[in-house]
Amino acid sequence: MSLAKPPHVGSFFGQSVIALAERLRAGSLTSVELTQAALDSIERLNPTLNAFVHVDAPVALAQARKADELFAQGLDLGPLHGIPVAVKDNIDTFDHVTTYGSAHFAGFKPSRDALCVQRLREAGAVIVGKTLTHEFAYGPTGDRSLQGAARNPWDARCITGGSSAGSAAAVASGMVPLALGTDTGGSIRIPAGLCGVVGFKPSFASVPLEGVFPLSSSLDHVGPIANHVEDARLLFEVVAGRVCAPMANPRPLRVGWITTGSFGPVDAELDRQVYQAAQQLFGEALQDAAELVPLAAEMKDTLLVLQRAEAFDVHAERMQDAPHTFEQEVRERLELSREVRGWQYIRAQSSQVRLKAAMARLFEHYDFLVSPSVPITATAVDAREVRVGEQDIDVRAALLSHTSAWNLTGLPAISLPVGLLRGMPVGLQVIGAAGEDDRLLRVMAQRFVRD
Amino acid sequence: MSLAKPPHVGSFFGQSVIALAERLRAGSLTSVELTQAALDSIERLNPTLNAFVHVDAPVALAQARKADELFAQGLDLGPLHGIPVAVKDNIDTFDHVTTYGSAHFAGFKPSRDALCVQRLREAGAVIVGKTLTHEFAYGPTGDRSLQGAARNPWDARCITGGSSAGSAAAVASGMVPLALGTDTGGSIRIPAGLCGVVGFKPSFASVPLEGVFPLSSSLDHVGPIANHVEDARLLFEVVAGRVCAPMANPRPLRVGWITTGSFGPVDAELDRQVYQAAQQLFGEALQDAAELVPLAAEMKDTLLVLQRAEAFDVHAERMQDAPHTFEQEVRERLELSREVRGWQYIRAQSSQVRLKAAMARLFEHYDFLVSPSVPITATAVDAREVRVGEQDIDVRAALLSHTSAWNLTGLPAISLPVGLLRGMPVGLQVIGAAGEDDRLLRVMAQRFVRD
Repeated sequence: MSLAKPPHVGSFFGQSVIALAERLRAGSLTSVELTQAALDSIERLNPTLNAFVHVDAPVALAQARKADELFAQGLDLGPLHGIPVAVKDNIDTFDHVTTYGSAHFAGFKPSRDALCVQRLREAGAVIVGKTLTHEFAYGPTGDRSLQGAARNPWDARCITGGSSAGSAAAVASGMVPLALGTDTGGSIRIPAGLCGVVGFKPSFASVPLEGVFPLSSSLDHVGPIANHVEDARLLFEVVAGRVCAPMANPRPLRVGWITTGSFGPVDAELDRQVYQAAQQLFGEALQDAAELVPLAAEMKDTLLVLQRAEAFDVHAERMQDAPHTFEQEVRERLELSREVRGWQYIRAQSSQVRLKAAMARLFEHYDFLVSPSVPITATAVDAREVRVGEQDIDVRAALLSHTSAWNLTGLPAISLPVGLLRGMPVGLQVIGAAGEDDRLLRVMAQRFVRD
Repeated sequence: MSLAKPPHVGSFFGQSVIALAERLRAGSLTSVELTQAALDSIERLNPTLNAFVHVDAPVALAQARKADELFAQGLDLGPLHGIPVAVKDNIDTFDHVTTYGSAHFAGFKPSRDALCVQRLREAGAVIVGKTLTHEFAYGPTGDRSLQGAARNPWDARCITGGSSAGSAAAVASGMVPLALGTDTGGSIRIPAGLCGVVGFKPSFASVPLEGVFPLSSSLDHVGPIANHVEDARLLFEVVAGRVCAPMANPRPLRVGWITTGSFGPVDAELDRQVYQAAQQLFGEALQDAAELVPLAAEMKDTLLVLQRAEAFDVHAERMQDAPHTFEQEVRERLELSREVRGWQYIRAQSSQVRLKAAMARLFEHYDFLVSPSVPITATAVDAREVRVGEQDIDVRAALLSHTSAWNLTGLPAISLPVGLLRGMPVGLQVIGAAGEDDRLLRVMAQRFVRD
């Protein structure tokens, strides 16, 4: 599927990490050149897009030189060796300020790397900087943080979506070919969908969360944002600390289209476009999956209770001692979060167990489920209502509506860029069975080709 | 240690199940005779003590006849075969009304036995009836239930303590030689202590809870009330479905006396008496354990949060639909319970994990910890304040103060009757390391002899 170019384009727009890795090994490119290209693109585009909140050129170039030296010594750390990567600013890095998007942590420098960052470094990746996160990753718009709003490369008046706002903008604009994000209710897939890149939320607990600032411990995930599914797989393999199994003998797929409306209103034109993309990808295998309709409300309610209680647990002292240091909208969410009752949390925990079991039964009949990643295209920065069909709906609820169920149930889910609607990207979400990350990545890498 | 007799005494006062079991096998007694003796004692004493809330003589005698027939056929189901046993009314029995002490379940007949009752039956025990529980086991006094208050055999104006009120009164008065209770904050050990019998709360999850009405899923335990430690062990073995390991080679004990006051005010005379009993039991092995002082407050707070949130989860619909069907004091507790916040529950869960780990470290230095089971003797029915030293303290808080930490940490703990103070029984609590139920029972059976 072909995408036009956004108005704001850097060196790595649409570039494949696999191709870059080949050129590094062929000697036609160096990591220093790649890193300099990333730094140049950031310098040129970031004032408009606000994707990066911290870049340290000397540190990045030193890493790149080290990567080149290792190549020169005949040492090869794997496919990410020498590749510039961006890291979301809610993930600890010992050599970059890490603010979690909040004034509470202005200027904070963690003492050590998150485990996923450590793995990235061990794989030879060059960490060029930290990307904007919605404050404490607690918001799907990506426009409220210590560093303001990230801007969509396709239209800088619009949001990127969040909370991995800067990571999506950085890859979508081509500042870097690869970025790390986190996803608690859709925070990788939403901005990937709205910015026109690939975003992958792995199975729950497949990537360690040590050193990632928590939002909601039963829903948090770490994963990649990339131009291509194969690139997302490479980054996933590194941070998960394992290699994906090769594709087993192909068997006929059974793919369920989640009945439109199951998870709330969808822009009709966007829905049609995503459905057509799904038909192109899966053909005859695509069938209607109406089974989620009766579960959707419980899924949404359950996630909300878990997320709220767990988020307030993280922030209780800050809400007590310095509530006005939070951005106002985040503070309002936390005030609501405080009110969740213990017995409701207990019930939500039981619900989560039940719903995971229900999904296991459902996936006996499907290999994948598909839906739009987000039921709307990117809205204006700071807009909180949007017209869909005949009704005005809440932007934040709409953004999260199609992704959060897969955080609750911990299933792997990927957002693929499948075209533009009124000039803005549209994403298709494909959800796999529990633990079947490898299969989802392998099949989608084979079937989904971005021109 | 010698105990006088209470004014209300039935056939089994002070009797040993092991001795009864020998006589059954020698043919000098039948199960029908034992059961009839229990029924006669109940008929005589229960109008005063209100220990049993449901007794079905024909059903009990039929079980006894069956037990005798099996003996006659040469079949021996083990040490409880033919022994009359009482079961707390929050434990399901298919052949007895089971009210959970509440008007919400007046006349309720469960469709099947709790798993622990099923195991009792398979061991040949004769279930003579159901004993009074504080409503939904949610209270340590045993004087608020659908069936009113249980009365202390040593002074019928006084409480038995709860919530296993009827089970303790039934054994302490000698209506039956053995009873099953449950313990969420001390509900076996408190009435055992106040009534002058042995009460054992096993390690968490060592006895299955299927068919036991929940109070608080992370704190609930099932266990025995008996005249002798050996009898408690026999009942524990049956309901736990395993035989306790024989005592390993004796090694010198290290026993920690929990610093007086660690868990709140204690009657000074009672404290002295319990300490002397501990010295008699453990001699030189007894040393001062001050390590709990800094943990006690967190233990108490944590238990309260878990118990409240989990209790409200159980009763939310009843509190919504029919709040006035609850006894007033229980309703007031549930109203407080509703207010626990989700984030507080999450922290309490983490605290529980931390405190269990702290106990594991502490028990590297001790084999047992000891304290009074209850810091006061039985108070008057319905009294809610009691003078201890110079201060008036809350009866319910005092009753729970020394037992609840061992529900939170899941450690095995036994209450032993060690004498009378102003005519009312006093209990010594011995706490074992995690999972060391067998050792606790074996050592205490050897050292503690009730005259």
